[in-house]
Amino acid sequence: MQLNSLPESELFYRIQRLLAGYCQCIDDDRLEEWPQFFTERCSYRIVAQENAARGLPLAAMSCDSRGMLHDRVVSLRKANIYEVHTYRHLVSATVITEVTADYARARSHYAVFRTRTNGVSEVYSVGSYDDRIVAEGSSLLFAEKLVTFDTNRIDSLLATPL
Amino acid sequence: MQLNSLPESELFYRIQRLLAGYCQCIDDDRLEEWPQFFTERCSYRIVAQENAARGLPLAAMSCDSRGMLHDRVVSLRKANIYEVHTYRHLVSATVITEVTADYARARSHYAVFRTRTNGVSEVYSVGSYDDRIVAEGSSLLFAEKLVTFDTNRIDSLLATPL
Amino acid sequence: MQLNSLPESELFYRIQRLLAGYCQCIDDDRLEEWPQFFTERCSYRIVAQENAARGLPLAAMSCDSRGMLHDRVVSLRKANIYEVHTYRHLVSATVITEVTADYARARSHYAVFRTRTNGVSEVYSVGSYDDRIVAEGSSLLFAEKLVTFDTNRIDSLLATPL
Repeated sequence: MQLNSLPESELFYRIQRLLAGYCQCIDDDRLEEWPQFFTERCSYRIVAQENAARGLPLAAMSCDSRGMLHDRVVSLRKANIYEVHTYRHLVSATVITEVTADYARARSHYAVFRTRTNGVSEVYSVGSYDDRIVAEGSSLLFAEKLVTFDTNRIDSLLATPL
Repeated sequence: MQLNSLPESELFYRIQRLLAGYCQCIDDDRLEEWPQFFTERCSYRIVAQENAARGLPLAAMSCDSRGMLHDRVVSLRKANIYEVHTYRHLVSATVITEVTADYARARSHYAVFRTRTNGVSEVYSVGSYDDRIVAEGSSLLFAEKLVTFDTNRIDSLLATPL
Repeated sequence: MQLNSLPESELFYRIQRLLAGYCQCIDDDRLEEWPQFFTERCSYRIVAQENAARGLPLAAMSCDSRGMLHDRVVSLRKANIYEVHTYRHLVSATVITEVTADYARARSHYAVFRTRTNGVSEVYSVGSYDDRIVAEGSSLLFAEKLVTFDTNRIDSLLATPL
């Protein structure tokens, strides 16, 4: 599938579906499936907005393969024994910024809400996704996902994927 | 209209329109129109995420006809005389999970913000919608709507529909 | 381009793209480009939901040209020297309410989150957009944008555009 042969509205729909499936996978706590939204070799990076704005290349997290993403899930499963939270992602304002035969780039805004066992929901993280998306067979996958977070919490990086 | 004869991107648009109309109806306080988003015989259930995760069938609310939804609106109008809140729904991350000739299933995430008379907005409820959607004439309607809420507040079920 | 000659799902996509680009322009702090989302003569008004509900025509802000929007950006740049916030818009639940050859009307819900330098994100403003949208060349632009805000904060109007 050559991505630039699709009508842009059709490509937009497929990207929305990819993003939505990604959010639901995380929030349904099917984290073992989460790496499958990425290509085998990939880039998943999380950076603070204040660093991105200054051009600083510091990443709070950086994974470059599905295997590393899988390792992260294993760590999370071991670390989060004692406390149970529920996360809920919204994704919005997606703009397709580039389309070639091989990939598309899209930028989106996200918000994640966290609910603790006391039942109270709070704004957990807001920020943006800059994605480079490729087709493998009939599916779209993330070849690169850059998460830029506005919210700067100490506990964010120990928790669920953004 | 056979739903599986529509291109998926077209079906997606129509489902988005249904969900958006539903949210605006509630937030514009046109609650008397709210039952019209459902089929005459329908299922509208609200369950806590923690119960859903445990496979418990307990519903915090369960209505199985437009008439019951209408009764609920009448109750709300009587109960909410003294305090005025504004609600604002966002809906996001919709995935179409099944399409047949007769119905489509879609799963979405929602967030509702509540603004009190003091002007402060807060996260009121976040969760998911699992919808079974059918066509009646040129319109789509909810035959089943399962609201699974993360946020567990005592006052939630006395207030506006989710 | 006659807007009523487009399939509604295609028009919906283009309106989503317009809204998304608008949100990203503001949140990326490219405020000098913000007036370009409007026609040269335009209407940009911000009203409180409680006034709108009462039919009061009071606008907290009213601009009727790109030049006035530009002046507002200049004022913001001068006023906001001392404190830096990050804003993040989500936009959702868009319903196209009218389409003619010359314009389309659409209503959407928005939420804006603000992150302070301490890293905490909060619900800054929620409300609705009522937009009248026209085509100029291949682009869509806002001829009218009515922002109705639920959240009523003293500091909202001194800050970033909604």
